[in-house]
Amino acid sequence: MLSAEDNEILTRTGPGTLMGDLFRRFWIPVLLSCELPEPDCPPVRVRIMGEDLLAFRNSEGSVGVIEPRCSHRGADLFLGRVEDCGIRCAYHGWLFGTGGECLEAPTVSSNDTKGKFRERAAIRAYPVREAGDIVWAYMGPPERMPEFPMMEFTLVSAEHRFASKKLQEANWAQLCEGGLDTAHFSFLHMPVDVDSANIPTGAGGAGPQHMRWMKNDPKPRFSIKEHPAGLAMGGARHTDGEDTYWRIAQFLMPNHGFAPSTLVGRTYTGQTWVPIDDINTWVFCYSWNPEQPLQENEKGYVQGVPSIYSEVDENYVPIRNRRNGYMQDRTAQKYETFTGIVGVSEQDAAIQESQGRIADRTREQLGPTDLGVVSFRRLMIDAAKALSAGEEPPAAARPDAYCVRSGAIVTGPEKSFDEVLLTRFGTPNGEADRQYESQAAE
Amino acid sequence: MLSAEDNEILTRTGPGTLMGDLFRRFWIPVLLSCELPEPDCPPVRVRIMGEDLLAFRNSEGSVGVIEPRCSHRGADLFLGRVEDCGIRCAYHGWLFGTGGECLEAPTVSSNDTKGKFRERAAIRAYPVREAGDIVWAYMGPPERMPEFPMMEFTLVSAEHRFASKKLQEANWAQLCEGGLDTAHFSFLHMPVDVDSANIPTGAGGAGPQHMRWMKNDPKPRFSIKEHPAGLAMGGARHTDGEDTYWRIAQFLMPNHGFAPSTLVGRTYTGQTWVPIDDINTWVFCYSWNPEQPLQENEKGYVQGVPSIYSEVDENYVPIRNRRNGYMQDRTAQKYETFTGIVGVSEQDAAIQESQGRIADRTREQLGPTDLGVVSFRRLMIDAAKALSAGEEPPAAARPDAYCVRSGAIVTGPEKSFDEVLLTRFGTPNGEADRQYESQAAE
Amino acid sequence: MLSAEDNEILTRTGPGTLMGDLFRRFWIPVLLSCELPEPDCPPVRVRIMGEDLLAFRNSEGSVGVIEPRCSHRGADLFLGRVEDCGIRCAYHGWLFGTGGECLEAPTVSSNDTKGKFRERAAIRAYPVREAGDIVWAYMGPPERMPEFPMMEFTLVSAEHRFASKKLQEANWAQLCEGGLDTAHFSFLHMPVDVDSANIPTGAGGAGPQHMRWMKNDPKPRFSIKEHPAGLAMGGARHTDGEDTYWRIAQFLMPNHGFAPSTLVGRTYTGQTWVPIDDINTWVFCYSWNPEQPLQENEKGYVQGVPSIYSEVDENYVPIRNRRNGYMQDRTAQKYETFTGIVGVSEQDAAIQESQGRIADRTREQLGPTDLGVVSFRRLMIDAAKALSAGEEPPAAARPDAYCVRSGAIVTGPEKSFDEVLLTRFGTPNGEADRQYESQAAE
Repeated sequence: MLSAEDNEILTRTGPGTLMGDLFRRFWIPVLLSCELPEPDCPPVRVRIMGEDLLAFRNSEGSVGVIEPRCSHRGADLFLGRVEDCGIRCAYHGWLFGTGGECLEAPTVSSNDTKGKFRERAAIRAYPVREAGDIVWAYMGPPERMPEFPMMEFTLVSAEHRFASKKLQEANWAQLCEGGLDTAHFSFLHMPVDVDSANIPTGAGGAGPQHMRWMKNDPKPRFSIKEHPAGLAMGGARHTDGEDTYWRIAQFLMPNHGFAPSTLVGRTYTGQTWVPIDDINTWVFCYSWNPEQPLQENEKGYVQGVPSIYSEVDENYVPIRNRRNGYMQDRTAQKYETFTGIVGVSEQDAAIQESQGRIADRTREQLGPTDLGVVSFRRLMIDAAKALSAGEEPPAAARPDAYCVRSGAIVTGPEKSFDEVLLTRFGTPNGEADRQYESQAAE
Repeated sequence: MLSAEDNEILTRTGPGTLMGDLFRRFWIPVLLSCELPEPDCPPVRVRIMGEDLLAFRNSEGSVGVIEPRCSHRGADLFLGRVEDCGIRCAYHGWLFGTGGECLEAPTVSSNDTKGKFRERAAIRAYPVREAGDIVWAYMGPPERMPEFPMMEFTLVSAEHRFASKKLQEANWAQLCEGGLDTAHFSFLHMPVDVDSANIPTGAGGAGPQHMRWMKNDPKPRFSIKEHPAGLAMGGARHTDGEDTYWRIAQFLMPNHGFAPSTLVGRTYTGQTWVPIDDINTWVFCYSWNPEQPLQENEKGYVQGVPSIYSEVDENYVPIRNRRNGYMQDRTAQKYETFTGIVGVSEQDAAIQESQGRIADRTREQLGPTDLGVVSFRRLMIDAAKALSAGEEPPAAARPDAYCVRSGAIVTGPEKSFDEVLLTRFGTPNGEADRQYESQAAE
Repeated sequence: MLSAEDNEILTRTGPGTLMGDLFRRFWIPVLLSCELPEPDCPPVRVRIMGEDLLAFRNSEGSVGVIEPRCSHRGADLFLGRVEDCGIRCAYHGWLFGTGGECLEAPTVSSNDTKGKFRERAAIRAYPVREAGDIVWAYMGPPERMPEFPMMEFTLVSAEHRFASKKLQEANWAQLCEGGLDTAHFSFLHMPVDVDSANIPTGAGGAGPQHMRWMKNDPKPRFSIKEHPAGLAMGGARHTDGEDTYWRIAQFLMPNHGFAPSTLVGRTYTGQTWVPIDDINTWVFCYSWNPEQPLQENEKGYVQGVPSIYSEVDENYVPIRNRRNGYMQDRTAQKYETFTGIVGVSEQDAAIQESQGRIADRTREQLGPTDLGVVSFRRLMIDAAKALSAGEEPPAAARPDAYCVRSGAIVTGPEKSFDEVLLTRFGTPNGEADRQYESQAAE
């Protein structure tokens, strides 16, 4: 349960908000690289943390993420022409580069465009990186720009990873909470008959046996471990025998979560919740396998395969969404699945969006299984308050600490979370067990 | 004409408003019984007086009307499962009964759910009654809950009544005024040629002759009589000869109106205007005949039969509505009917909604034919103000006074309204001329 | 660049605003005459400067522009019947004339309708004129009503003119600025290959040669001349040789603009930007030729003919609009036209609407080619401020001064704007070179 004030801090990310300032100390996914498929292709509108922006790929292949208004008379550069290594306004032909600089102003005599004009006529532009098939921007103060985080999916070669995105129509924080809340698996994603033979195996390897354990133990014991990039979160459940079934999620500041189901050697998955505004979120979804190239049925939504991917339309809007009630089938709910909604990602979306466009955290009844959610909130709210008091977030200065994994393992009973982490990952906090070179900033 | 302040008082029924408090001293229709057709059927979202609620029928057939948010993390219980004599949240499986009590909390250890947990984790729930094929709730302070009103349509046996509902997209008060305003019949519902042979007879028995009298006398003389449950309203018009054609409507506090056309022995009809919020209203419509079972063409909308029922879609939204201009046909308006809109109920909806989402009563030119409207406003505003000064509404304590009828009669001239009431109904205020037993509260 | 305060003054025209007061000193187009095709035809809803109004043509053919609310109970007169030389409310039959007077009140006894009733029950109505196939209203204080302006298209005979309208979804002022900004022609309306043989000739006679001159000289030199009704604006460009290509636009207070392309003897065109509210505008478009009747391809939108007319649906909403991204074709933009949007008027709409529903003029980089825009803003803001200080706008008292033309001409170099005006029009300010009689006010 939060005070109304803390709930505001947690959920608001527009310019000038505490959490917005904290987000703006990190690199943020803006769109998929494939949305800008080639040099001089059409530009794409994006809205990130309440800021309307325009992304384009210039003649040389570099991506710009800029304020979309021409500095001359305010026309929308979206209508303009991507050409001549910039984007040209359709009204009077002013040309802007990926850095926001005004490269040409045909209505102004060349004498006048010298000197201070170029600076005065520049538009806002953010530094951009492409990594992991995603375009990222840094939207904070230039002097605070951190190194790019070493998330493993961005470091493996292209055939070892897949990335997509999906729209969710609610505040980022409650979606992130849903991603970190491994307790809900005992209900939300359950078939009605968990002993049935038809339970599909998920991308990370969780199958009928694991589902039954989760169904039978709806009160996992939580362990939380803070590390330089965020939090490792373990949930321990009883198995059929004496062993313990551990599911370990990762939260990486400010908005990344890795899913807990992956068995050793299987494919890892993660999500990054990017506020469009305070009531809509782009959820970037990615899968990676450091050991082997991904298989076809691991690349995005596949019917019958439980995963983080939603079935989406050409605009990355889920087919099953709040406007159509997630196509909930009450008969299927009675006889087949706990919700009657098709798709694990869609079930998550339904329940998370049902908490309201911005969840009211002033009326809750939190218990031990909400420990992950509580830890996430505390970490983020404290960091936002600390930043407003002048203390920069340490995680931004530790790009290496983002090279972690999440996943599941069955262990003997009575192990400590530290032991379990070492057993599952071979490292104290889930760090990847291989070395990658840092990506040089462009 | 009202002051702006009184117009606010009359029209606002959200929690904490004066009129909202007054409404919350009475039993209010919430949805039709048939919307919850069987035990453990899907729940139904309802919004009443600005409160978002959820109605469900539990395994034993009892109906709950509850706040739709799980007390654990605020997920919408609408997505949940109606089972195990309650509704179970789809997120982590908490189960709530029709009284709002938390019956199970699987994520919480059984030790912790003892003691004060059950109370702390309860959600808001309102007392419910089913009567007259309608689910009613009492949404006020528990210690003020009145006995259930003895409206005759809820007391006759099922085959003697019919109930439905229709959406109207405006404030409740102006719709209620339209129902009580028997003067507008001289225009709004008229055919262009009142002498034509094709004028249909309404459910209550009004036919071509009565239509002609109404057309020829657009200035009915009004008489108002206050009684314990509300107001009897008589409108007297000239007939072809010396007799007088009386049409008597009933207003019962806080939001019931009975229609004035019914001839002796014919079927009675009434409407109850339930605010969804301040700009939308569910109009519950019902017909009953104490003498004989209803005929098929008296049950809801029937093409060509003038009545209170609109033609509605599966969500009870009228087919002819404000978004399609009520399908007004200007050619039909020129040559056939006064409005060119099909349906008496639809004509009412069109004109009532055209007054604005909330009618501005500060600019009006009221005259003698508006006496019913004026009396209704005064009664309700005074009662709302009295309640805010601590005076409970006497009508709530008189369930027996709701067993009245409305209707029409042709009498000799120069009769007083008291004499006319006695002649038409055999009782002083239109009370039913037979005895019913009070319904025991469930 | 304007201060935020001046931008508010320039753009807001609702009742009680400074610019709204200024507009209300002039006759304003309200709808096309053809929207009310015959006596007693259906009424038409119009919204002008934030005022919801109703236009109807009475039994004698006269047009009324009235407040749409019946004074009795506030029902919308739109639902009513146009008959008996007025419009009759559908609720209780009250009848109102074109002047707003209450002609009949059937629910009120005839004694009561005498005396002050007629005045008390009157509704607001504005003086109306029909001219140039357009219905105009004067919405200001009666004692300030000016004579009707002598715009030439309203004075020529019917076969010499054409009028239509189109919706634009943005504030009036930025649309007007776009009409006066002749510099943008060098970009917005250009084909990609200006030397191609396929450049069509516009209604005013501008062809491939003129297009090339505009493309090659994106920095026209501006001259502005103030005259009694507004501003003549000249833009001078280089031709292939030593001559100068002049394009002269007219701005007439408060919201009329004449297009600059017309060559001598060709058809003139103008636009009047009428605020629906502060973010939507009816653009009335008209063409006239004093010398000869219009040809068929000069009457409204014709595919392939550059003009002020948009392709519109039956409600005068452009087929290519902001909701469908103006059907911008990015492939066509790459290879065919500067925007990939079909239609000169549509290109204007796209870029003008892209400046925002109300353009933010506090962040601009104005240069010499924006002199026309700057002069327009200054004239209007100064006049609005002067009026609020008690100084009536002189232009309203000079109906004769509105009989001007705009157009283009190629002249020898080094001519002053005064000389160019005389050469092109034979008059100092573009006044028509023939005499018309003033239209007597109806």
